Amino acid sequence: MTLTMSTALLTDHYELTMLQAALRSGAAHRRAVFEVFARHLPGGRRYGVVAGTGRVLDELERFRFSEEELTYLRERHVVDDDTLAFLADYRFSGNVYGYREGDLYFPASPIMIVEGTFAEAVLLETLTLSILNHDCAIASAASRMTNAAGKRPLIEMGSRRTHEGAAVAAARAAYIAGFASTSNLMAGYAYGVPTAGTAAHAFTLLHDSEKEAFEAQIASLGRKTTLLVDTYDVAEAVRTAVELAGPELGAVRIDSGDLAAAAQEVREQLDALGAFDTRILVTSDLDEYAIAALAAAPVDGYGVGTSLVTGSGVPTAALVYKLVARETATGRLEAVAKRSVGKPSRGGRKQAYRLLDDAGNVETELITTGGLAPEGGIPLLHELVRDGQVVGREPLTAARERHAAAVASLPQEALHLGRGYAAIPTEFA
Amino acid sequence: MTLTMSTALLTDHYELTMLQAALRSGAAHRRAVFEVFARHLPGGRRYGVVAGTGRVLDELERFRFSEEELTYLRERHVVDDDTLAFLADYRFSGNVYGYREGDLYFPASPIMIVEGTFAEAVLLETLTLSILNHDCAIASAASRMTNAAGKRPLIEMGSRRTHEGAAVAAARAAYIAGFASTSNLMAGYAYGVPTAGTAAHAFTLLHDSEKEAFEAQIASLGRKTTLLVDTYDVAEAVRTAVELAGPELGAVRIDSGDLAAAAQEVREQLDALGAFDTRILVTSDLDEYAIAALAAAPVDGYGVGTSLVTGSGVPTAALVYKLVARETATGRLEAVAKRSVGKPSRGGRKQAYRLLDDAGNVETELITTGGLAPEGGIPLLHELVRDGQVVGREPLTAARERHAAAVASLPQEALHLGRGYAAIPTEFA
Repeated sequence: MTLTMSTALLTDHYELTMLQAALRSGAAHRRAVFEVFARHLPGGRRYGVVAGTGRVLDELERFRFSEEELTYLRERHVVDDDTLAFLADYRFSGNVYGYREGDLYFPASPIMIVEGTFAEAVLLETLTLSILNHDCAIASAASRMTNAAGKRPLIEMGSRRTHEGAAVAAARAAYIAGFASTSNLMAGYAYGVPTAGTAAHAFTLLHDSEKEAFEAQIASLGRKTTLLVDTYDVAEAVRTAVELAGPELGAVRIDSGDLAAAAQEVREQLDALGAFDTRILVTSDLDEYAIAALAAAPVDGYGVGTSLVTGSGVPTAALVYKLVARETATGRLEAVAKRSVGKPSRGGRKQAYRLLDDAGNVETELITTGGLAPEGGIPLLHELVRDGQVVGREPLTAARERHAAAVASLPQEALHLGRGYAAIPTEFA
Repeated sequence: MTLTMSTALLTDHYELTMLQAALRSGAAHRRAVFEVFARHLPGGRRYGVVAGTGRVLDELERFRFSEEELTYLRERHVVDDDTLAFLADYRFSGNVYGYREGDLYFPASPIMIVEGTFAEAVLLETLTLSILNHDCAIASAASRMTNAAGKRPLIEMGSRRTHEGAAVAAARAAYIAGFASTSNLMAGYAYGVPTAGTAAHAFTLLHDSEKEAFEAQIASLGRKTTLLVDTYDVAEAVRTAVELAGPELGAVRIDSGDLAAAAQEVREQLDALGAFDTRILVTSDLDEYAIAALAAAPVDGYGVGTSLVTGSGVPTAALVYKLVARETATGRLEAVAKRSVGKPSRGGRKQAYRLLDDAGNVETELITTGGLAPEGGIPLLHELVRDGQVVGREPLTAARERHAAAVASLPQEALHLGRGYAAIPTEFA
């Protein structure tokens, strides 16, 4: 079940036809610098969270045109024979720099920079954007949810509400942004994300009574299990649950109704039954606003599905992959930018730094196109690929810790859930 | 590059722990009927479009727990040894019925029914919902766009704005719902969807002048190519384009600005230059509303990205997978339904029919739990899997034709883009 499939066809048709035309004109071999950035933070968000970088590195290594891919391209006349010959030998041999996973980004932050020939760098546009646009969108939404939840743990359980492959990536991105666990087993297998689960209404309905269902679950999974108590009548279910499991019952899950009121009633009932340590887990279309609204309710954990995997209203991060510099006919590297209406971009190979105030809080995202590093500025771009070799891998837990530290460094108002401007200004030097 | 990876871990943790508990209680071997349906059509939509069924069948055949998956589950203590033994031998041996791809659905339409033992049917919940929730959401949005575009062709080009695997499925779903082509090469490879592409601003910026870029593209791809004309100045680019390619130039693409005004100006310019047959393709954050607003503009085709792959505001279809009947201790099949607040569901094994009025327009979605088929009612559920064997495969073009016919059978008001109620009522008998 190792993921060995080639990723080369996860690519837009025009990348290959542009390659063909550039091979013909000779410009394909010019050095080029592409940059991934967002013109704006969507949805009135205060910050974005970088996620997917590690997946880009994994999939870059599998970006190969084998005979199967080449046969398809030949038979469909997608590109000519010279281009097919180029693709057969294709190996990315350039450099990639990027923000680290879990770090934050703001408008115009150059979260990834790809340097190589035009030919080798243009081919990576579609796949790189697919991964980063999805994973950053999910991590950015997840970060708002973990902020809203405070110290209470969040379980990611949205697999069923998104594409089956996206589900795995979403679980990974949510973990980076502070979720405690996921329901998705493939995310556990592929990325080591802790997995968790409770039970569904179907399990209760399958048995001849709720009591029989609870007995079966406790007998098999132990008293520390989480029992789902809203299939029929919540109060009756809670009574049955504690009767069967005793006060050692791990948790109950409530998945419908007015969650704040239900949690309050269930807490009182559990306490009255002596089940002081039995936790209350709530689910049912939660998003960061609903989580925040439950802050005062006696809830011990949240399960979040749909809103997490759909980016809570922002399912894609609006990142673009733009040529910012290219070699001229005379061999010089020149900054370039198009002049389309309403779609600003800035040419040139960037450096990026985060500047802190005296108290250690982040103050400015500084983007430069050369010159000295600003004093005390934290460099944000790290080497990920050198001469085609991946050098920037790191454990997922490093990204998770980085995210927690980065959020803690933000001004307090950056954590407000309402629509607003970027938490810190982006400045150009 | 054949897709041979096991799909078994694209599954929620709790499906396996419920299985474990049900194996222990013995209830796992009871016959069970699960149903996939939507309680409501999200976003004020008038109808939904079924898509993903074919992918469910493909992935069902790869739903196997091999030694790699079992080792992971054992090492992480996800389930016990008895359950691992069950999983090692797992083959779905039941029956699946479903609406055909490309067909429409309405609230409560039972678009898929899975019959088997509880053990074998519950395991398919997560994967089935992941596929159908994603693909139906995309197809439902795509259908609104093809309605808005009328006879003008649509190119799906949203791969970069969604997860790389979701991109392939989105291209497939869009094709079912009437899109002419996709930019996604994997969708061409895996599903035979026609692929297409133009060129990016990077290609123009790479060359020393726009003229050199256009020359290179025409030399390599021929006069029928599509030139991107908004990198610098549109009028100048169009003049250069026709100067180089002559009136045989295939098309120009405009990707920014006021598309209606720009298309009008470019059409006039092309006509003045004698390029009467050169088509105008527009792109730039189009959705069904923007497409409809361009109906009077001289546009020959639309490229749609972000809004297509994100379901145009509705990225998931809100489909659920619910136990509707199960075998009792005495061996009888009994209808079941939970009683959760605000989450209605109806028990029982369903049949579904579409009823037409005398003019042949659809009038009612009729759902029954037994009894005779209504006279003249079109049965909507078809056999997809019989005793574990896939029997319901069909070519993607069949789904595409079915969708076109199904939309044509709707009352005219069902095609309105504004928010509203389901186009036809769902009735229960």
